[in-house]
Amino acid sequence: MKTVGVIGLGLIGGSMAKAVSRAGYSVYGYDTDASVVKEAVSEGVLAGELQDHYGDIELLLVALYPMDVVDIILDTVPKLSKGCIVIDCTGVKKIICSALSGREEMAGVRFIGGHPMAGREVSGYVSSTADLFEGASMILCRDEYTDEKALEEACDFFPKLGFAQVKITTAEEHDSVIAYTSQLAHVVSSSYIKSPTLEKRYGFSAGSFKDMTRVAKLNEEMWADLFLANKDALLFEINRLSEHLEEYADCLVSEDRDKLVELLRNGRIRKEQDLWISD
Amino acid sequence: MKTVGVIGLGLIGGSMAKAVSRAGYSVYGYDTDASVVKEAVSEGVLAGELQDHYGDIELLLVALYPMDVVDIILDTVPKLSKGCIVIDCTGVKKIICSALSGREEMAGVRFIGGHPMAGREVSGYVSSTADLFEGASMILCRDEYTDEKALEEACDFFPKLGFAQVKITTAEEHDSVIAYTSQLAHVVSSSYIKSPTLEKRYGFSAGSFKDMTRVAKLNEEMWADLFLANKDALLFEINRLSEHLEEYADCLVSEDRDKLVELLRNGRIRKEQDLWISD
Repeated sequence: MKTVGVIGLGLIGGSMAKAVSRAGYSVYGYDTDASVVKEAVSEGVLAGELQDHYGDIELLLVALYPMDVVDIILDTVPKLSKGCIVIDCTGVKKIICSALSGREEMAGVRFIGGHPMAGREVSGYVSSTADLFEGASMILCRDEYTDEKALEEACDFFPKLGFAQVKITTAEEHDSVIAYTSQLAHVVSSSYIKSPTLEKRYGFSAGSFKDMTRVAKLNEEMWADLFLANKDALLFEINRLSEHLEEYADCLVSEDRDKLVELLRNGRIRKEQDLWISD
Repeated sequence: MKTVGVIGLGLIGGSMAKAVSRAGYSVYGYDTDASVVKEAVSEGVLAGELQDHYGDIELLLVALYPMDVVDIILDTVPKLSKGCIVIDCTGVKKIICSALSGREEMAGVRFIGGHPMAGREVSGYVSSTADLFEGASMILCRDEYTDEKALEEACDFFPKLGFAQVKITTAEEHDSVIAYTSQLAHVVSSSYIKSPTLEKRYGFSAGSFKDMTRVAKLNEEMWADLFLANKDALLFEINRLSEHLEEYADCLVSEDRDKLVELLRNGRIRKEQDLWISD
């Protein structure tokens, strides 16, 4: 594999283009903002514009808003060479994979649902960096339609961009776990920042406050779609968290110190066990 | 001021001793674990054991478990020289200040309630470092009994240990704000780690998960006491957070995208405004 296409040159797509280019591939890109494509070409990140090279690319990476991914991939597939690997970078996988996997219009290409587990609280090509994926996990979804040879090639490819591991899973498993490890964090952070006490916090904030509210600085249009596309799993996590919060609150109301210590101890032990897991 | 005493040589007290010593003061220390005192003396952190030098110190820092602070200070005061400044390092202030401020037994010393806004997910002298307070906020509580000259001296003193600022407030204000910026974060983190999905997270975790669960690794005995000593303020914050979480959940249930975007946008704007506040 020598030639890669990237559609969507925002934070994720721009960083993909930069990391792929740094790894020695020829990269052709497309973005609705033509000035971004020009900039990427002038920086040497892109070898050229994708529209002149659809037939040349062996791998297409698609990094768009969740609601645009399926349509754009379906529009693009007829322009690609037979056997081209197509991987999207969307943060939810069931709606994408179920819409594309095994579909007649997709027969000419080898599609894999993907999700690079990386991000920043900034967006756009201007914020993209070649090292965004250093140490991160690249998730790939396998189903009955997955071309195993394409999956192997993808597993070889992503570590070259800095990913520490490639995790192979199903779209269903992805969506249920991601609801916990990423989506719930964004809901909590966005909720945490809303306390009326925020206005009085100057001089009182420690690292824990900053950690809790970091991802409240999010792209609301994108995250609303990601949340709605994974509604059931995210609701499950919000409800579990609310129940657990209530247990602590109940102990405070009843001033049950023994039970409170037990709740905190159980949390500490779970965290300590979790720290043995590398990410 | 040249000579400082420290009672309690755990993470906070040990770090205080190291930072004070590094700043050029003579430090005398006490801990119930005699081996820790020996180690600190052999490392040159302590000039000697506190029990031989109570009368020499001009400032006493007390860094103990919340429930021990008042009794130990009352026991120690008779041994101190008249006018010695006494500052505790406890994470709640109302129960400490109301028990000590203006009390007859405290007449010979100048007491100030304090709270260094720093910590780590490890404990004990072995984890203490001279730079724990770099960039942090030192909170001091003023009330009608506060000696203004002592407060001035304290304001000059703490920046020498690396603190970026000294914040003067009341015990009531401290406790209400700290419930939000620190205590709630520990409750959320301890709750967050309890989802049954934790067991499946390997390969799926991004920075936001790590941030959300970092402080779940806490000292449950200490935090239970801190929470119970600030019960009303912490319950207020848990309840506000639960209400806000429920708003997001309601939007998901009703699939109200416009309202969900609005909730997320409001959170993003509050976070962006907050980022303009230096800590």
